[in-house]
Amino acid sequence: MKNRQIVLARRPHGWVQESDFRLLEAPLPVPAEGEVLVRNRFLSLDPYMRMRMSDAPSYAPSVQVGEVMVGGTVGEVAESRSPLLQPGDTVTGPLGWQLYGVAPAKRLRRIEDPVASLSAYLGVLGMPGITAWVGLELIGPLQPGQTLVVSAASGAVGSVVGQIARIRGCTAIGIAGGADKCRHVEQDLGFDASVDYKAPGLAARLRAAAGKGIDVYFDNVGGPIFDTVLEQLNPFARIALCGQVSQYNLTEPYGVRNLRSLLVNRVLLRGFIVSDHMDLWSKASAELTAWVRAGSLRYHETVAQGLANAPRAFIAMLKGDKLGKQVVQLEDD
Amino acid sequence: MKNRQIVLARRPHGWVQESDFRLLEAPLPVPAEGEVLVRNRFLSLDPYMRMRMSDAPSYAPSVQVGEVMVGGTVGEVAESRSPLLQPGDTVTGPLGWQLYGVAPAKRLRRIEDPVASLSAYLGVLGMPGITAWVGLELIGPLQPGQTLVVSAASGAVGSVVGQIARIRGCTAIGIAGGADKCRHVEQDLGFDASVDYKAPGLAARLRAAAGKGIDVYFDNVGGPIFDTVLEQLNPFARIALCGQVSQYNLTEPYGVRNLRSLLVNRVLLRGFIVSDHMDLWSKASAELTAWVRAGSLRYHETVAQGLANAPRAFIAMLKGDKLGKQVVQLEDD
Repeated sequence: MKNRQIVLARRPHGWVQESDFRLLEAPLPVPAEGEVLVRNRFLSLDPYMRMRMSDAPSYAPSVQVGEVMVGGTVGEVAESRSPLLQPGDTVTGPLGWQLYGVAPAKRLRRIEDPVASLSAYLGVLGMPGITAWVGLELIGPLQPGQTLVVSAASGAVGSVVGQIARIRGCTAIGIAGGADKCRHVEQDLGFDASVDYKAPGLAARLRAAAGKGIDVYFDNVGGPIFDTVLEQLNPFARIALCGQVSQYNLTEPYGVRNLRSLLVNRVLLRGFIVSDHMDLWSKASAELTAWVRAGSLRYHETVAQGLANAPRAFIAMLKGDKLGKQVVQLEDD
Repeated sequence: MKNRQIVLARRPHGWVQESDFRLLEAPLPVPAEGEVLVRNRFLSLDPYMRMRMSDAPSYAPSVQVGEVMVGGTVGEVAESRSPLLQPGDTVTGPLGWQLYGVAPAKRLRRIEDPVASLSAYLGVLGMPGITAWVGLELIGPLQPGQTLVVSAASGAVGSVVGQIARIRGCTAIGIAGGADKCRHVEQDLGFDASVDYKAPGLAARLRAAAGKGIDVYFDNVGGPIFDTVLEQLNPFARIALCGQVSQYNLTEPYGVRNLRSLLVNRVLLRGFIVSDHMDLWSKASAELTAWVRAGSLRYHETVAQGLANAPRAFIAMLKGDKLGKQVVQLEDD
């Protein structure tokens, strides 16, 4: 048996291209003492990966040219050299863009008694869902009756943010790109309203949707949408800064003009990375699992077929050409 | 006896001009039950007043055209209709740009046993000093060994921020405009280093001064200096957003490009207004008073003479043409 991997072929400049990646065959990796070999079944594709392709300083090391792309996966244990896991156990972990990966058993999380499809453990019940939960936790409790706005609202994180806001008694408004996503956000996910940022007049339509102003903003995009939201914040508004996906592929960042609002409205803003908050993981996971089981937290996935299609699916995700969580189903050997 | 007042003559567009103000004579105001009449001795001039001259929405109501300009004052009670204060008591309060003012006794603070000149109760021991203390308190405790940067470092707030940082065991770096202010910040106030933003190469010189990066930024100016600091933040940096004085007189705000740093470095940023935090006032005041008494907290004032000179002194302050706290000594009748 051979492994198949996608490595970084070169660093992108501006928009990522498929030729920035390369598909390779490699020998099957061999677990050392304490490690396990995992056959990956689903690969998660997430916006943060774009930052890792760059060599600009960031919170995590860059992927080096020639290295396997980083990524979350779900799969089953094929071989174990640890008492913590047995062959056949279903696990999630950071095993990257490849069919097989090796990791210390203690870095993997076993899924027992799944309440949803395995791929959901890369989305609503995995890193993106927990990111939504943690981001809201870090800026302080949501108050019933407040208005929350989230950008990239149909995405893996945004879709969970808005639904948590609804569960906690807030009005949830989603910003998304295009009529299909807006319909999804309102009709399938149950947001109170949606605003299409690709249509003209974003500021006026957002103001109409958030009639009482914005109390909480969960930002996944940065740039001009962030600037527009700043103008409509209420006093003592709070902002969770989770992503800047509108900026990742720009060579020159957008200049944000409405920062005066942060002062005038005494805004609390907090940038965060979910992996800094592993102490919150199990509480978040338990609550998200209960909501999914009860049917109060819904999710949608876009599933690409086969490792070779991961680069194309990744680029489509960065451009917003998908609905919900983007995953790759890894082909059978 | 007559009162003399300075009222807002018209709203400024761009830079404030002396003709935006008008000096008037008016009858002496008469205190109602529970109120006192105060003879103001010093008037405080502060950057926030520029925002009140505008009709853009802000945290406090605008001064209306024809109204007396708002401002903090220190003076003595001339007539009392409240058991809380006696004639001759020294008080501070928000009595505005005028020789005499009336206010409810409970809105004034009596100064007993002063440890410094009366004008200091408008600066280091008044609203600006308490603003410095509160801003640092709101973003969490300073850690010894960390590096703090403050802009407008020779000003009424910034000068106190840097000295508190030193007292708490931090390295304090001040950004100020021109060699004289930088010398003052280092030699008179004891900051570890200063950086002149008017000289070329701000980013490189700030990087040289803050060799280990910036852990805490206390921002009084916004704009391009804020953008430069963002590039040099350390992980988990904290920002107190206190003022945007570089932006108040612009008709088109500067576009800030380095907000990605807030995400990558997981920054906590908090905009604040000292008057929201009256619960902290007495603790702040007690600590500042103790430091002034012990000689560990120094202050410098620029004193203009006479109410008629207040507009010119205010404009000079906005342009940075003064050292330390700007006050106006109100002439004898």
